[in-house]
Order: sequence, then C-alpha cells, then structure tokens
Amino acid sequence: METNKKEVETSNERNQSSKQANRRKVPQLPYRNLDFPYAPTNLLSEEQLEEIHETSLEVLEQVGVAFLSKRALSVFKAAGADVDETTQRVRLDRNLVMESIKTAPSSFTMTARNPERNVLMGGTRLNISNATTPPFCSDLKGGRRVGTFEDYCKLLKLCQHLNVVHFLYGYPVEPQDLPVETRHLDAYLAYATLTDKVWRAYATSEDALRDGVEMARIARGIDMEQMRGEPSLLSNINTNSPLQYGGSMADGLITMAELGQPVVISVIEMAGATSPVTLAGTMAQQNAEALAGVALSQMVNPGTPVIYGSFTSNINMRSGSFVLGTPEFVQIGIMSGQFARRYGLPFKFNNSCTSNAIDAQAAYESQMSIWACMMGQPNFLAHGVGWLENGLTTSFEKMIVDCEMLQMASRVLEPIEINKETLAFDDIKDVGPGGHYLGSKLTMKRFKDAFYEPLLTSWENYVTWQKKGGVDLVTRAHDIVNQMLDEYEEPVLEPSRREELDAYVERRREEIQTSVG
Amino acid sequence: METNKKEVETSNERNQSSKQANRRKVPQLPYRNLDFPYAPTNLLSEEQLEEIHETSLEVLEQVGVAFLSKRALSVFKAAGADVDETTQRVRLDRNLVMESIKTAPSSFTMTARNPERNVLMGGTRLNISNATTPPFCSDLKGGRRVGTFEDYCKLLKLCQHLNVVHFLYGYPVEPQDLPVETRHLDAYLAYATLTDKVWRAYATSEDALRDGVEMARIARGIDMEQMRGEPSLLSNINTNSPLQYGGSMADGLITMAELGQPVVISVIEMAGATSPVTLAGTMAQQNAEALAGVALSQMVNPGTPVIYGSFTSNINMRSGSFVLGTPEFVQIGIMSGQFARRYGLPFKFNNSCTSNAIDAQAAYESQMSIWACMMGQPNFLAHGVGWLENGLTTSFEKMIVDCEMLQMASRVLEPIEINKETLAFDDIKDVGPGGHYLGSKLTMKRFKDAFYEPLLTSWENYVTWQKKGGVDLVTRAHDIVNQMLDEYEEPVLEPSRREELDAYVERRREEIQTSVG
Repeated sequence: METNKKEVETSNERNQSSKQANRRKVPQLPYRNLDFPYAPTNLLSEEQLEEIHETSLEVLEQVGVAFLSKRALSVFKAAGADVDETTQRVRLDRNLVMESIKTAPSSFTMTARNPERNVLMGGTRLNISNATTPPFCSDLKGGRRVGTFEDYCKLLKLCQHLNVVHFLYGYPVEPQDLPVETRHLDAYLAYATLTDKVWRAYATSEDALRDGVEMARIARGIDMEQMRGEPSLLSNINTNSPLQYGGSMADGLITMAELGQPVVISVIEMAGATSPVTLAGTMAQQNAEALAGVALSQMVNPGTPVIYGSFTSNINMRSGSFVLGTPEFVQIGIMSGQFARRYGLPFKFNNSCTSNAIDAQAAYESQMSIWACMMGQPNFLAHGVGWLENGLTTSFEKMIVDCEMLQMASRVLEPIEINKETLAFDDIKDVGPGGHYLGSKLTMKRFKDAFYEPLLTSWENYVTWQKKGGVDLVTRAHDIVNQMLDEYEEPVLEPSRREELDAYVERRREEIQTSVG
Repeated sequence: METNKKEVETSNERNQSSKQANRRKVPQLPYRNLDFPYAPTNLLSEEQLEEIHETSLEVLEQVGVAFLSKRALSVFKAAGADVDETTQRVRLDRNLVMESIKTAPSSFTMTARNPERNVLMGGTRLNISNATTPPFCSDLKGGRRVGTFEDYCKLLKLCQHLNVVHFLYGYPVEPQDLPVETRHLDAYLAYATLTDKVWRAYATSEDALRDGVEMARIARGIDMEQMRGEPSLLSNINTNSPLQYGGSMADGLITMAELGQPVVISVIEMAGATSPVTLAGTMAQQNAEALAGVALSQMVNPGTPVIYGSFTSNINMRSGSFVLGTPEFVQIGIMSGQFARRYGLPFKFNNSCTSNAIDAQAAYESQMSIWACMMGQPNFLAHGVGWLENGLTTSFEKMIVDCEMLQMASRVLEPIEINKETLAFDDIKDVGPGGHYLGSKLTMKRFKDAFYEPLLTSWENYVTWQKKGGVDLVTRAHDIVNQMLDEYEEPVLEPSRREELDAYVERRREEIQTSVG
C-alpha cells in the first residue's frame, strides 16, 4: 500500500508549487454555518400529522418490525418489547416507543479534528455533505469509470476544498481497486489526513465501524472517554423496507450507541414497491421504521445522538425503477421534516437526481431536492455535491454544479438586513426619479459583496459568449475542478498522530489479512 | 396579409389529418386550477415589513414619483396630490396613498372566450403565463433567429396546447416581419383565433390598447358594458425606475382603468443601477413605485383590478448587466409577496433565467424562480414557459423544460390525501416485514395516477439510455414540441365573431396605414 501514501505526498508537493502561481482563486463563498432564518413549510395540518403518527404506532404495535440481529432482539426484550425469536419480529407498545425516544437529544455537536469544522446538528442549522458511496465516478476527460483510490482521493480533496461541504458523509466514490476487507482502513486514513472535517464510519461490518471510531479518535489525539462525550463521526443505518433492519445495520446501530457516536436512521422506502402506493401510507411506514430504530438506540444508551433520516421516494410505475428528485420525493421530504420536529429530532434529507448527464434534468431534479430542503428544513442535507444517476455515479463536474446551486441557496438563507442605512432613504432622495445608483454613496460603500458572485454560471450575453467560443457549462465546471484541485491545501496533522494512524492501519491490515487467510 | 390567414387555415388542415394518427399523446397533466395548500414563506418580520413600508411612504411624500403624462398629472392633481408640472413630479401624502389603494380588489376574474379558461386572480390561486415579447426565438433545427409571424403562431399554438399555461401574457416572440404600426392587429387576431385563453393588450400605444380591448370583446361576442364588468384581458405597466412612469405606460394604465380592464404594475428595478444596492432600499423604492401606480388606477376608476408586480433583480457588479434567477431575485420575490398580501393585492412574479443555452444553468436559474414562487406564492407567474437569455429569446425546447418543471411544481401543490384508505394500515399489515407492495390491493387500485409521470425527464438507467443512443434532453424536447404542434387543435370560434374580427382588423389596418401615410 506504499502507492497510497505516495499519492498523498506527491499531491502535497504539487500543491506547494501551484500555490505560488498568482491566479485569482475560484470565488467560492467562505466556509460558514448556515441557519434557516424563516419558518419551515408544513404540508400536513397538526391533525393530519397525528393521524399518520397514530397509524405508525398501530403498525409498531400490531405488525411490528423485523430485526435480523440477535443483539437487537435481546435489547428489545430487555426493554419489555414483545419479541418473536422465530420471525425476529419486534412489536412495540406505543408507550414504550414514546418513552424510549424521549432521551434522544434534539441537538448535538460532532467534533472535527479542526474545531472550526465542528458540526452542530439540530435547531435551525443546516449542514451539507457529499454524495456517498457510488460505484462509479465520471469526469469530462476520463469518462464514466469504476471508482479507484486515486479518484477517491481527488474527490476527498474537492470535498475538503469546497466550503459548501460541512462534513463528509461517506466515500465520495467506492475505491474498488482496494481489497474489500481492508478498504476501509485506506479510505479512513485518507479521510483523516486529506481532510479536517467530520467523516463517517461504515456500519457494513463491526470491524469497519470500530476502526472508524478508533481512527477518528487518534486523529483528534484524545482518549476514548473524551470521544464518548464528544462524538466525532457518524454512521448511516439504512432500513430494509418494509419494516426490517438487516443484521449489520442493527448491530452497527448498537455499536455506535455503545460508543456514544451519532447515527442516522435513514429509511429508504420505494413507494409502490417497498412501501404503500399512497404518500400517507408511505409516511406511516417510514415513521414506524424510524421510530423503531430511534427507540433501539436509546434502549442501548439513553442520550445517543440520533438523526431522523428519510431517503424515501416513489418508483416509476412503468418500469418499477426507483426515481429521485420527483414531486413525491419533495412532498415526502417536507413531511418528514414535520415528523422529525414533532419528535424533537435532528432531520436528514438528500440532494438527489435520476439524470444520467449533467443536463437541465440533473439541475432541475437536484433543485427539486434543494428547495424541498429550503422548505422542509433538514439539519443535514446528504449527497449535497456530485450525485448523478440515482447515486450510481459521482461526477466531478456535477460537484461544481451542486456547489453553485447550494451557494445560491445559502445566500437566500442570509437574513435581510433592515436598518436606517440599508433602507437607503438618503440614497433614494439623492438619486431621485430618472437617475441611477451606479456611483451613489451607498453603492460605493457596499457594492463589493452586495450580491452573490457565481463561480460556474455564465452571465455573458449571447453574442459575447458565442464570440468567446460558447464554452459549455460542463467544460467550465471541468476547468473549475482542475483549478480547485490545484488550490487544495492539505490540512496540517500533528506528525505524532499521523504516525499513530499509520501504525494503526498497518497493524489492522495485517490482522485482517491474517484472519482472511 | 393574406399569408397570415392562410397560415392559420393550413395549420388547421394539417391538424385534422394528424389527429387521425393513433400515436400516444404527450402525457401532460390536464388543464386545472392551481392553489397553494400551505402558508407562504415570510423573509421579513412584521416589524421589518412595516419599516420598509414606512420608508416607501416617506419616499412618496418627500421624493415623489415622476409621471411623464399630462393625463396622469391631472388625475393626481384632481385627487389632491402635490403635483409639480415642471418636473412632472408627483408627491403623495401617505393618507392619500393608503385611502386610494383601498378600493383595489383583492381578487378578480378575467373571462376568457372559453369560460373553462377563465382566470381567477387572487387568494391562493396560481396562474402561469408564457415568456413575453422577446425579439428572438430559437429551436434545435432552426437555430436562433429574429422572430417572425410564423414563429409567433407556432408558439401561440404551443401555449394553447400546454395545459400548464393558464393564459397568454404577451407575444411569445415579437413578430418582426410584420409592420410595426399594424403588428398588434395581426398578433391579436392570432391570439383570438388560435387560442381560447385570456390574453394581453400592449400599452405601447393607445391604439394597441384600445384595439386589444375591442378585439377581445368581439371574440367573446359581448358589448362594452358587459366587458367593463367582466374584464377579459390585461395589460402590463412597467415603471421606468427609479421612481418614474413613462408617458405611454402611464396613459395605458389610465385607459385600461377607464375601460375596467386589469393592469399589472410591474416594477423592474436593477438593484445597484436603478435602485439601491441594498435589498431593503430596493424593496422600499419598488414599493413606492408600485403604490403610486396602484393609487393612480384607483383614482381613475375605483375598483380597477390591479396586480402588484415585481420584476426586480440585481446587476452583475463586474459588468453592470441585469441578471435573473439569482439569490437576490429569489429574496426580492418572496418579500414582494409579503407586500402584496399586506395591501390585499394579487401578486405577480416571474420564471426567468440568464443562461444562453438549455443547460444546467437554465434549469437551475429557472428553478430558483419557480421555487421563489412556491415560497412567495404569487397569483401570477409570468414568463412561465420558454424564457432564455434574460428574455431576449423564446426557445421552443425551453418551453418543454419549463412545462416539465412547472408540472412537477404543480404536483407538489396537490394536497396530501389523508384518510383511512390512504393511511394504508391494512396494506402494511398484509405485506408485512420483508414483503413488497407491487401487487398489493391498494397498489392495484391506485397505481395509475399515484405518481407524477414526466414528459421530458429520462428515467432510464445509464446503460439502457446509452444503448438507445443516449438521446440528449434538448433533442427530446425538440421532438415533444413537434408532437405537440401536431396534437394542437384550433379552438372553435363562432363564424360570425371570426368575420367581425376579420372585418375589424381590415378596417383598422386601413385607418392606420392611411394615418401613417
């Protein structure tokens, strides 16, 4: 695995030299915390919300949820749930559910190794992460291809450099040229060295989860006790709808709760296939699945930070395929926000699209997702940058398109400044009817950051744009990717921590290789 | 002008034959009324709204608005305003403004010649119109070109055929091959014959306005008294910011008010150039300009239907050019809705973009506009379909992109159906953990219209899409345009009205040609 370390080092050297070039940087907005300054939209009345909530509780009581995990079944049994060991089905009394979830915090902080990248999850805060775990990646020059560790590292660097990305929610592409058993070790090492943001440990195996927590701990240079009280990374727990948690997911949830680290309960329903064809029924089932997972986390370790996540959408009724960025996806997202707020839980939603190309469709589907976010107000927008093809591909250029769209959305979140100066009565009086403001006092004072400056959008008129060659948007995005990779700076990591991380990875790699044989 | 009539007739014949072909129609949603089922978003607190409102009143009192129209100045003088004849500046006391605008109705109906296309303007209703008055049009095969009457008629047919277009707000392209003086006669005749929806008369000249009202009256087969009580078309009154109404616009407003027909006061500010560089100041000035126009309409004829319109955005601070679909445009749109609601007036906003191509930018900028609409809740979304290049071009293919985006938005507006059946407890119980809903009772009953079916969006996976040739979105849109033009049916118009319209046009054409010499 020498090549991996080398990749990191040479990239470092390349950055050092390119930084000396005196080019104007890509004008991205600074890294900053985003908060919703206005009330969320509610699609459901209070009564309708309660009707769905009641149905969820009936489902939990009468139908139950299957947990394909002995650990989970015994936790539920100990908590007083009705557990059928044969069918692995857990039926939960409504009082047990509602009492259990009470201890879940309404907000919590994930501590990054760079404290300026800490993530507050809850309240009005919005955090954005990258597209997660696609098998493929693509860029204009290299085309669509199976992800490699080289692609993975490049994408990580972009995620680190993009200020609109608050933290990393999983591999930006699956590095498929690395052996499966030890892949997580290299992937985590790159997380911990190429970025200083919060990242994710995978619950696909107990090893992957524990190694992740351990490596995040080492990167911060703290002990496990501190780590428990100051969580540093999170994991994603998918349900296997309808009404089922797979073994590794249920076990992962328990392990994370034991270690005091946050989990996202991400319910992925495909309405019409794995959940009812009606949105009301789909919400009732989603809510039942989510509440069962939240309850489990609190039964294991009361106070475990847990996020109410939805990745539910509908299927294409003509083909049966799952489709994203649809009107139903938007409605489900906004309603899911209402449920999360009803239970006092942080809420996760997603920026997704079905399109195969970086075309108008990719943009309008992603915008459907982003504006569902603007209205439904998740605390966590997953898959924020790079997503194409229902998540099969991370596109380098789509990262830039998403960055532009999210930066624009973030400007809409800026509170309108209302005071004597901004109301501008004096300027209006000075200029008067028929005048202009191009050189007015207030304009001269404030023009520099009065309005959003785009990074990808072309504001040239048609004739000028044509004269300059009519460069298309994807080509422009490609150039920005390259410039950003040049601008990337590897965040400083104390050498002792780096050595400890390297040693940990080498030790674990040998252990795993030995056990695999 | 024989060619124009011929164009209409031959197209009719073509449609008759193509209708016999047994092809599946483009799956657009049916024509229907749209209503916002949830509360609008407020970016400003009540106090902030009042601060801006107060500033607007101070501007009206102390700075005033210039009206380059003797008719307007005398109306204001008669109403008791402070009128300076030399500077043509009108200063309005706050009580005079607030008393005057009280008579403007909070909602009204525009009656189309087909009563099923009547337009209710006000309350929670959303009406969508076409892109208006660009000099150019473009399509994939014909490229970008100066608009002709042939293009104009084709675009009108599309507007008639597109169910997402509730009415026509102006020429979909300027038919520049027709003589300027009589152009409006041919354009209106096409409105009145190729479509049965409400349309617009231009306030560019007194002739154009009066001919429009007269021709809309004839097309409905009613007398002028009925026309006054049941308005049938509307006109757009632009301000010439800052704080100025041009002569033809002010006169047009007065004429429309005299004839009992609705006007849109559409304030077009370019923040940083024709309005303050701050959004607070820009809103204060927009509001002052709008209130002055609304007051004038009510002074002329109390009860005149008038719409509070905003077409305000920012300039690109690097070039000075006007830019649309920006974060500031979104914020201004949402705030403008708050002002319209404060004064109990219907509200107009716009679907706009700056992009030169039908690319991701065109889609994300238009989506910014559409979602500002979803949050700010205008009653009237102007330029709904076809807009490119800041409005310089109507694109045939962009019509389809916009139709898809607006149809998706309209599905988001559908109230969630919550009842025993949709909550689906029985279905959830029947299917149980680990099952699927593909053949369940509820799915079989409801699958047909459970989810939105797109017309342009490709939901094929990457490999299938590639195998089928990877047809790009613009080509797909082009094919849909052609199919829709084939599907178009000319709405029936009673022969006697058609004859009267033809005779009116011929008489007026001669009069105008004679007077021009």
